[in-house]
Amino acid sequence: MTAAEHPFDLAIALAAEESGQFSGHTSERYWNAISPFGGTTAAVLLQAILLHPRRLGDPLALTVNFAGPIRAGGFSIRLVAARTGRSTQHWQMEIRQPGEPEPLVTGTAVFAVRRPGWTDTETRLPETPGPEKFSRYISPANVPFLARYDIRYVDYDPFAGGADSSTQCWIADVPPRKIDFPAIAAYCDTFIPRLFVRKGKMAPISTVTLSINFHIDGAALERRQPLHAFGQSKANAFNGGYYDQEARLWSADGALLATTHQMVWFKDADM
Amino acid sequence: MTAAEHPFDLAIALAAEESGQFSGHTSERYWNAISPFGGTTAAVLLQAILLHPRRLGDPLALTVNFAGPIRAGGFSIRLVAARTGRSTQHWQMEIRQPGEPEPLVTGTAVFAVRRPGWTDTETRLPETPGPEKFSRYISPANVPFLARYDIRYVDYDPFAGGADSSTQCWIADVPPRKIDFPAIAAYCDTFIPRLFVRKGKMAPISTVTLSINFHIDGAALERRQPLHAFGQSKANAFNGGYYDQEARLWSADGALLATTHQMVWFKDADM
Repeated sequence: MTAAEHPFDLAIALAAEESGQFSGHTSERYWNAISPFGGTTAAVLLQAILLHPRRLGDPLALTVNFAGPIRAGGFSIRLVAARTGRSTQHWQMEIRQPGEPEPLVTGTAVFAVRRPGWTDTETRLPETPGPEKFSRYISPANVPFLARYDIRYVDYDPFAGGADSSTQCWIADVPPRKIDFPAIAAYCDTFIPRLFVRKGKMAPISTVTLSINFHIDGAALERRQPLHAFGQSKANAFNGGYYDQEARLWSADGALLATTHQMVWFKDADM
Repeated sequence: MTAAEHPFDLAIALAAEESGQFSGHTSERYWNAISPFGGTTAAVLLQAILLHPRRLGDPLALTVNFAGPIRAGGFSIRLVAARTGRSTQHWQMEIRQPGEPEPLVTGTAVFAVRRPGWTDTETRLPETPGPEKFSRYISPANVPFLARYDIRYVDYDPFAGGADSSTQCWIADVPPRKIDFPAIAAYCDTFIPRLFVRKGKMAPISTVTLSINFHIDGAALERRQPLHAFGQSKANAFNGGYYDQEARLWSADGALLATTHQMVWFKDADM
């Protein structure tokens, strides 16, 4: 299998249109309950910028707003380089589908050229045995995209319920795939919903908005070529049908890849 | 002094234009080194949505990208309600100035109607003496907006330098003003730059992008009418001329108001 044949690469494959925009197609293998896995949606927006001829540097920040459910089928990505400076570039993005007058996804991204200088990571990879020491988690949720991620919780049963939503896990693609920027974006949305962790059972949830700050540059990522990431995730508050999720993501060899936060809609009528 | 005469209200005052957009004017009193204080810019974008006749519910999330420096003078805010669902509404925003073909600020926001249901806050206000027990911090930075905030660090001298960028502080407006959603947005950008905390001195920095998740609804905020907020802030990583800042913000009576993340450009040539 070549990299180009990996199901993740197929899921985020884009064709450049004459308009300068990109067209893509949803993937059955990264399907969630009623729309694509949000991580693939974040990844494909990032991929569009990475493929764009005017792109400057590497991803620094990404915000993706899930405004409406993407249906199975083709979609188009509209990209605008809103402003390009000497070292930063600001993008505005939308995902649209035929017959929908309004965008289904909106977003912004900042790309930047990093330069040599003072470097320090305060938020270090926790000391923990490697992924081979833990078992792959099999979710009771019967949605296709979960088969595409090898998630290994290192601390406890994520469905145990309790007063603390924190979890820690190893994450890898199935089959294995070197972690690149689109993979980092997707990994940021692979954590088991914090509501499930607290309640010990599943309930209807939907990510409304997701933001990611990237802490590694492309050259360092290429040099490391990690296959496994380690993630810590927690919620700060559940309130009025919405809760948040914060997470940190490191490569197995200790580089902080990204920090991320999202807001999630949830339904708790039966709780 | 009435609420309408507070300098913060004047700084975020907007006039509705016939086009459906809004026009505003930068404030000398909230000026930073070369452009307006970023917190006022975030606040005025939120204020535009709050004033919009099609607005649904309360702020849930806000992302503001600082693409270019706003000059002193008038500006216009272009708002698009990209999609409105039953309980969430997605906005796209830009700030423009005459003679500038490109936007100076881009952003997105999600507003939502919260509904009664399961509520729990995991991230609690730390136990700490009230703001009256601490002295107001006087920054060596000679920029006007700092006079508009009463910041009281509770743990140590924020310019001490060291290996940990974490700080905790009380925050209030000068003169006092009840905390509303625009104030929360502005407070999220009042923390002393994490680079200064680590290095124990000032250096050129500029926020590139700022995201905020709101954890309180408008009715609860109105009921509490807090005058003081408590903030915790830290950086995760400094790398290649960019670093991040995370923060949490509570009302003095213990409600989690917001969590926020930003990426900051910095120059370290002389470090």
